[in-house]
Amino acid sequence: MLKIGLLGCGRIGQVHARSIGQIEGAVVTAVSDAFTAPAEALAARTKATVMTSEELIASADVDAVVIGTPTDTHYDLIHLAAAADKAIFCEKPVDMSADRIRDCIAVVEKADVPFMTAFNRRFDPNFANVQARIEQGEIGEVEIVTIQSRDPSPPPVSYIKSSGGLFRDMMIHDLDMARFLLGEEPVSVYAVGSALVDPAIGEAGDVDTAAVTLTTASGKICQISNSRRATYGYDQRLEVHGSKGMLRAENMLENTVEVATDNGFRKAPAQHFFLERYEAAYRAEMAYFVDQIQAGKAHKPSITDGLRAQLLADAATRSLEAGTPIRL
Amino acid sequence: MLKIGLLGCGRIGQVHARSIGQIEGAVVTAVSDAFTAPAEALAARTKATVMTSEELIASADVDAVVIGTPTDTHYDLIHLAAAADKAIFCEKPVDMSADRIRDCIAVVEKADVPFMTAFNRRFDPNFANVQARIEQGEIGEVEIVTIQSRDPSPPPVSYIKSSGGLFRDMMIHDLDMARFLLGEEPVSVYAVGSALVDPAIGEAGDVDTAAVTLTTASGKICQISNSRRATYGYDQRLEVHGSKGMLRAENMLENTVEVATDNGFRKAPAQHFFLERYEAAYRAEMAYFVDQIQAGKAHKPSITDGLRAQLLADAATRSLEAGTPIRL
Amino acid sequence: MLKIGLLGCGRIGQVHARSIGQIEGAVVTAVSDAFTAPAEALAARTKATVMTSEELIASADVDAVVIGTPTDTHYDLIHLAAAADKAIFCEKPVDMSADRIRDCIAVVEKADVPFMTAFNRRFDPNFANVQARIEQGEIGEVEIVTIQSRDPSPPPVSYIKSSGGLFRDMMIHDLDMARFLLGEEPVSVYAVGSALVDPAIGEAGDVDTAAVTLTTASGKICQISNSRRATYGYDQRLEVHGSKGMLRAENMLENTVEVATDNGFRKAPAQHFFLERYEAAYRAEMAYFVDQIQAGKAHKPSITDGLRAQLLADAATRSLEAGTPIRL
Amino acid sequence: MLKIGLLGCGRIGQVHARSIGQIEGAVVTAVSDAFTAPAEALAARTKATVMTSEELIASADVDAVVIGTPTDTHYDLIHLAAAADKAIFCEKPVDMSADRIRDCIAVVEKADVPFMTAFNRRFDPNFANVQARIEQGEIGEVEIVTIQSRDPSPPPVSYIKSSGGLFRDMMIHDLDMARFLLGEEPVSVYAVGSALVDPAIGEAGDVDTAAVTLTTASGKICQISNSRRATYGYDQRLEVHGSKGMLRAENMLENTVEVATDNGFRKAPAQHFFLERYEAAYRAEMAYFVDQIQAGKAHKPSITDGLRAQLLADAATRSLEAGTPIRL
Repeated sequence: MLKIGLLGCGRIGQVHARSIGQIEGAVVTAVSDAFTAPAEALAARTKATVMTSEELIASADVDAVVIGTPTDTHYDLIHLAAAADKAIFCEKPVDMSADRIRDCIAVVEKADVPFMTAFNRRFDPNFANVQARIEQGEIGEVEIVTIQSRDPSPPPVSYIKSSGGLFRDMMIHDLDMARFLLGEEPVSVYAVGSALVDPAIGEAGDVDTAAVTLTTASGKICQISNSRRATYGYDQRLEVHGSKGMLRAENMLENTVEVATDNGFRKAPAQHFFLERYEAAYRAEMAYFVDQIQAGKAHKPSITDGLRAQLLADAATRSLEAGTPIRL
Repeated sequence: MLKIGLLGCGRIGQVHARSIGQIEGAVVTAVSDAFTAPAEALAARTKATVMTSEELIASADVDAVVIGTPTDTHYDLIHLAAAADKAIFCEKPVDMSADRIRDCIAVVEKADVPFMTAFNRRFDPNFANVQARIEQGEIGEVEIVTIQSRDPSPPPVSYIKSSGGLFRDMMIHDLDMARFLLGEEPVSVYAVGSALVDPAIGEAGDVDTAAVTLTTASGKICQISNSRRATYGYDQRLEVHGSKGMLRAENMLENTVEVATDNGFRKAPAQHFFLERYEAAYRAEMAYFVDQIQAGKAHKPSITDGLRAQLLADAATRSLEAGTPIRL
Repeated sequence: MLKIGLLGCGRIGQVHARSIGQIEGAVVTAVSDAFTAPAEALAARTKATVMTSEELIASADVDAVVIGTPTDTHYDLIHLAAAADKAIFCEKPVDMSADRIRDCIAVVEKADVPFMTAFNRRFDPNFANVQARIEQGEIGEVEIVTIQSRDPSPPPVSYIKSSGGLFRDMMIHDLDMARFLLGEEPVSVYAVGSALVDPAIGEAGDVDTAAVTLTTASGKICQISNSRRATYGYDQRLEVHGSKGMLRAENMLENTVEVATDNGFRKAPAQHFFLERYEAAYRAEMAYFVDQIQAGKAHKPSITDGLRAQLLADAATRSLEAGTPIRL
Repeated sequence: MLKIGLLGCGRIGQVHARSIGQIEGAVVTAVSDAFTAPAEALAARTKATVMTSEELIASADVDAVVIGTPTDTHYDLIHLAAAADKAIFCEKPVDMSADRIRDCIAVVEKADVPFMTAFNRRFDPNFANVQARIEQGEIGEVEIVTIQSRDPSPPPVSYIKSSGGLFRDMMIHDLDMARFLLGEEPVSVYAVGSALVDPAIGEAGDVDTAAVTLTTASGKICQISNSRRATYGYDQRLEVHGSKGMLRAENMLENTVEVATDNGFRKAPAQHFFLERYEAAYRAEMAYFVDQIQAGKAHKPSITDGLRAQLLADAATRSLEAGTPIRL
């Protein structure tokens, strides 16, 4: 039985607690949060003990930690957990600074502890299915990857200001997905973007509508587009065109019902809420985290995957500023 | 070059003239109609000669006749054309009376002239594809056939009165399709029906909403439903469930465009007008009529197919009246 | 907090336990089973107490019972639970005999205890959505209901023998669904059927391929077809045609991925396993059971709904034997 | 009756002849071709007169010319036809050189003759429907346009060498479509590309896999991707994301049939052949050409639209060479 300590009892911590509750070989033993109320609520639901983060990481009753605290705390918690020889599951981004992620990599590698970066979308049953079939050769060599990702509505401008910008906050998921599907590192990044959804986002120095083009050394191409607005739900689609065929993952709709009237044939909107849309992915990523530890196998996405996605997001940010492609 | 005489220059005669115009090995040489204007208009468009029906059938410039006149004239025209040794393409129904169709069969067989009953839907690219794949064994043994057929709107009650009723006028297409797909003759027919669309149809002694169940000797089942109303276009769907899988043909929509809004994902209505919906079928059936004559091969659907569909429609009509299944 | 006792710890009892675990206002306090092992396993998972069924029903620590035991035990358990003034959730069928269900109705009404018959499909998000939209008038008056229900593969013949036959065992779900969607009681039932999937099923006196036609007093029509075989998954579809439009619920596929090759565009099979396909329905029905008790409101489907579905299944069975429609 | 002379009797000339044959108010009166056989064959089918191109342009029996000859002859024919005061329908590209197109514009404007550039895809019923609905405001302000265009298989390398390259030969259709849908001129073009389909294409200095990003002054973004290979047919899709919703046009499949087996649900491939895929578009563009002349209205796409698409293709070609975006 793997004993897990939850660092952070907010929305994402609660999601992970629920996932762990459905895994036979794992249990939440300890929780911590900067605030008392959420920690106690989650402790009540999971029969776990409330601790400080330092106590939790040091506890003999904790084999692995799940880091779901604010991004700027990840660095210290990773250092502490690695020193305490705990397995680490860390929400993305590992850190806003690539250099600090490199520090974490050094610490984690030296401590030789299991580490998984939580790019949950790799565990979405649809996207995982696409990637597995690429690996099995079903569509031959990958040639063009197309990713469309649109949020139902923009976050408040206050959030935008501390988010690191669209490429680091939102597109980073798609940049990781691009690496996952291309099977090869991008060598160039070109970004365009504008503030079409909310002028205040533009005034805050960010964009809400953006597109990125990636290329690889062998000539594969990836096109990503993002918008902070989609009236029809949380739009999450991708397609991979290969030498032998094409694979695509469509949106998850709210239900399978279609109505036909003189206006035509209408289906439900896409699921709106990211926790609902990616519910299966959250469950699967936590099950995988536990399984790999128990099997003594390395995790993917690794901490290095976390770094590489961050470097792509940094490059996209610079490309947008410079108006030219960035070579990696 | 097969020389074709058109008997009847109404809507369906014009459709067949257009189809013949696209066939390399056939030409319209003569046209006739009870009214002067449509005959002359079609003659002008096709460079054909206007004749009386007797002249046309007797003409040395006519190898084959296409009968597109009112149903009650079919019987005499078939007799004349068979006597004149012309190939015959006849619109459905061959006749409203099964006994009179049997007379026609005798005459056609004695004259040994090619004869094709115009069940155009067998030539629809979608339905023909389903049937061909059944024959190739793609879904194993046929077990359940489901046919849904709904008109956009009911005809005028005046038409209903002379139509022979829904089963002979509308469902006869589906009954022929059932035979086409079952690959085995029905042995029982059970019909239910009501007038839900227009009470005047009920007052005229007919139904506008109906369902039929057919069974075959080996235990195959077919369910058909009809409505004289469909707000979303001309609804024409079928599906065949077999031991190894299922084949289904979906509606033809007006276009492939989908709009996504907060109401969901909406596609265009089904094509409304039967001449548009079955345009490809009309072209294909006439090409087949010409091809089979030129190859010296028999036609399917034959005049006997015309009889069998009529017998099923008669049985459905009796079943509805009696409230019990009819054994054939 | 509603305290629930589980009578029966088999597959369906475990499903209900899991559902209750996700409901804020309910808890499993006691479990019972004819066998020790499943009772203890479920008690361990839920922290509930193992009791005999008599103890459980009598326990002050139980407000409501969930009956998931074999059908022939329902009658006695319902009598005991009603006498003990417990709310009752009972798996379908309530009993194989309509007369015995009528006894249960009398007992439940006299005791005035809440009672819900577990027709879980009414709580499937897709089917529930269809019914809600019918009620809201979105497609006007219902005219034709079409239900297609096909199992991935037939049960063992040993099961068939004690099942009551396809209409009582399998189609009963569709018969209840027909009532749910028609909004009006059927007045005639006509059934056809054959053993096409497994001859041994025919030898055991049952069918594995069947179709039923229902009509209502106002002329509404329902067509149902069932097969014990579907290579492409658990096929569960329905459509409702009304005066203003059509609503249909399509299958739940295993994922949203589509592959395109020279063979065309291919999507995943339908979900195969009924517990997976109806997972959301099971959760929703239990939440509804609890909610209605807490709100002091009556449940639908009621015990009378259980009786009516059984009467339709009985009528279909007789219709198949007699070869004629049965009037109700 | 508009009298049309066909310059060029090859494949595309024959398509236009067939379209004109279906237009009430137009007739083919003269045809010319560098080769005798195709000219005589088309003359026989249309009852038109064979002429030299000079005779045809000068003929009093010709009101309008349809230029379907090789690209390098367009320039001279446009000059002759403008001088002869004939309406002009010209296949794309007007010319391979932007400067020579500018010459043509000057001549056409001076002569004040009707001129239409044959970007047939604007007349595809699906794409035209998308654009019309954008204009009607159905999705609000356009924000992101995504165009995917893939040929079933690459042309021979011999063709590639004289084609002007992928951007001028293939993507030019998508670049015109981008302008059509964006409703605003692009101000930057960034292209990437590689030879993944056929190394010989790379050796010939061209690419067969490419992606372009366009931006407009107001911040709209367009992503286009092209491949010279698609195993599943002629892949022609586009989508437009706006402030109020999204419109997308899906592929035209060979038929509507779906087969379900243990491999899942499979539909037909996309139509393979461009003449079949765009048959309706060819008919509609010719009908529009005739209609606008008869109504005395200007044509869109105009000769200037032809120039602008060419300038975008030139810019994409330069961007690929330079590895940087090109500002327009």
